[in-house]
Amino acid sequence: MSPAELHADSIVIDGLIIAKWNRELFEDMRKGGLTAANCTVSVWEGFQATVNNIAASQKLIRENADLVMPVRTTADIRKAKELGKTGILFGFQNAHAYEDQIGYVEVFKQLGVGIVQMCYNTQNLVGTGCYERDGGLSGFGREIVAEMNRVGVMCDLSHVGSKTSEEVILESKKPVCYSHCLPSGLKEHPRNKSDEELKFIADHGGFVGVTMFAPFLAKGIDSTIDDYAEAIEYTMNIVGEDAIGIGTDFTQGHGQDFFEYLTHDKGYARRLTNFGKIINPLGIRTVGEFPNLTETLLKRGHSERVVRKIMGENWVNVLKDVWGE
Amino acid sequence: MSPAELHADSIVIDGLIIAKWNRELFEDMRKGGLTAANCTVSVWEGFQATVNNIAASQKLIRENADLVMPVRTTADIRKAKELGKTGILFGFQNAHAYEDQIGYVEVFKQLGVGIVQMCYNTQNLVGTGCYERDGGLSGFGREIVAEMNRVGVMCDLSHVGSKTSEEVILESKKPVCYSHCLPSGLKEHPRNKSDEELKFIADHGGFVGVTMFAPFLAKGIDSTIDDYAEAIEYTMNIVGEDAIGIGTDFTQGHGQDFFEYLTHDKGYARRLTNFGKIINPLGIRTVGEFPNLTETLLKRGHSERVVRKIMGENWVNVLKDVWGE
Repeated sequence: MSPAELHADSIVIDGLIIAKWNRELFEDMRKGGLTAANCTVSVWEGFQATVNNIAASQKLIRENADLVMPVRTTADIRKAKELGKTGILFGFQNAHAYEDQIGYVEVFKQLGVGIVQMCYNTQNLVGTGCYERDGGLSGFGREIVAEMNRVGVMCDLSHVGSKTSEEVILESKKPVCYSHCLPSGLKEHPRNKSDEELKFIADHGGFVGVTMFAPFLAKGIDSTIDDYAEAIEYTMNIVGEDAIGIGTDFTQGHGQDFFEYLTHDKGYARRLTNFGKIINPLGIRTVGEFPNLTETLLKRGHSERVVRKIMGENWVNVLKDVWGE
Repeated sequence: MSPAELHADSIVIDGLIIAKWNRELFEDMRKGGLTAANCTVSVWEGFQATVNNIAASQKLIRENADLVMPVRTTADIRKAKELGKTGILFGFQNAHAYEDQIGYVEVFKQLGVGIVQMCYNTQNLVGTGCYERDGGLSGFGREIVAEMNRVGVMCDLSHVGSKTSEEVILESKKPVCYSHCLPSGLKEHPRNKSDEELKFIADHGGFVGVTMFAPFLAKGIDSTIDDYAEAIEYTMNIVGEDAIGIGTDFTQGHGQDFFEYLTHDKGYARRLTNFGKIINPLGIRTVGEFPNLTETLLKRGHSERVVRKIMGENWVNVLKDVWGE
């Protein structure tokens, strides 16, 4: 099978996309052969603003039903593959939208939210993010984890602090993930995960999606798709070939104002970090270039079997474990 | 001057009342000779529910203008004394009502909220309460403290964890308080403060209001007003005669449902504590019995000068420092 044929035949999952919602993105997803993607609908927003985001996104999905469809289950993902559409799964990058209501976990699940990052960079009611001192998982956080387990929502720990992450991994009865992270073994950064952290989540049945966000890569904006592949290989070497996947963190379509929003606490308060210029690695600058990743992994000597796992099969398996369907 | 005359002549401040809002309470406040009280308008409520509480309270104050008046400044407190009314100052027992908006500090100040406890028993966006592991003051919490300093809102630490309390004391440029606490030197309890903690707040220009809440007193519901006076004396011995006042924590008028609300995280989630039966110390079971406290303190040998300070003058001074008016 040629690289292009393999890509077209594979289930391709992007574990994290935070791109601008519009038809151009959906067209690029089809061009990239994406079967499904975890699309962020909440970062700093509270309950109602998040519901509004979801309502707007649902309308956009409806209006572009020739390209995309909503995804609630792994059967929906397989259906999307069959129909040649991209399945859109809603995810949060911050449990803040649950506010102080445990019951909102199920409410949002009913609206299609199947993956939720516990914290985004700073402290919330659940725990603390990776850009400030981390006091660990709160009592309320433990109640939220239990409810996410019950309802079938995956705990994501990418932007979560080290201590809170470890305690969520121990607390959760279902697999948890770093949906989009890079190894600090290749570059030290508050957002990157140490070998020990990667091993810990894998040893506890968890999952790791590898990102290619330039500021967290050793070569920064001079990185290429081979640097991304190297990071995937580095991570796979620690977590194993069944616990690894893709989580690009594509931000395409957004302007500087959006990055200002992301890099300030609550979207407006003190600055937490400054990414500088963001350019994705050469060869995978846009969602439409996704087939290059399959080709690159094959070129670097990975078997078709392993490439299929990395590109999406592993994500489907772990989501099935968490969602139960 | 007889004890009754002294009481009638003194400025009498209760640093914390969480009683049921109604005319009966206001009548009892007048009977007790209360010049002003910090009345709780938010515990677990978010922004809008708190605004609703304030609106309802303002209506009640308006309808009972023969007995009570709103208080925004220490001049208002003196005015209330002159008019023979009780001044009502709004306070929060949880910064949760600020939600994620630093701007709400000033919004609520404009609605009359002049004292805010940073956390209530558990973790919020600012820090952590005294009933769970405390990771300290968050970055957002530091921004909130700075805004409270700027706007003139007093930081209250009564239900706040030890580490968060220490860090607020160090962070604040204006005096902070334990508005209603007891010394753990007389009884070990998560809500009580150690000698070191009492000394630390006093050494940093802070203030301590002493409560008489039975579950935190050594003799529990068998306590008398003399046990309360003993706790005041114990505390005053550490913090000095200028940094001490009253903060009863009167809950009169509320039923068991209200205590269930208080003792569960967020008002409904896991149980944090169980007070059991609550009976205030004999001699000061109701707000109307406040004059007995002046009498008891005099009987125990305190001078008129010191009794006036304890009963309210110190509170007025520290509020003036924080409010600036």
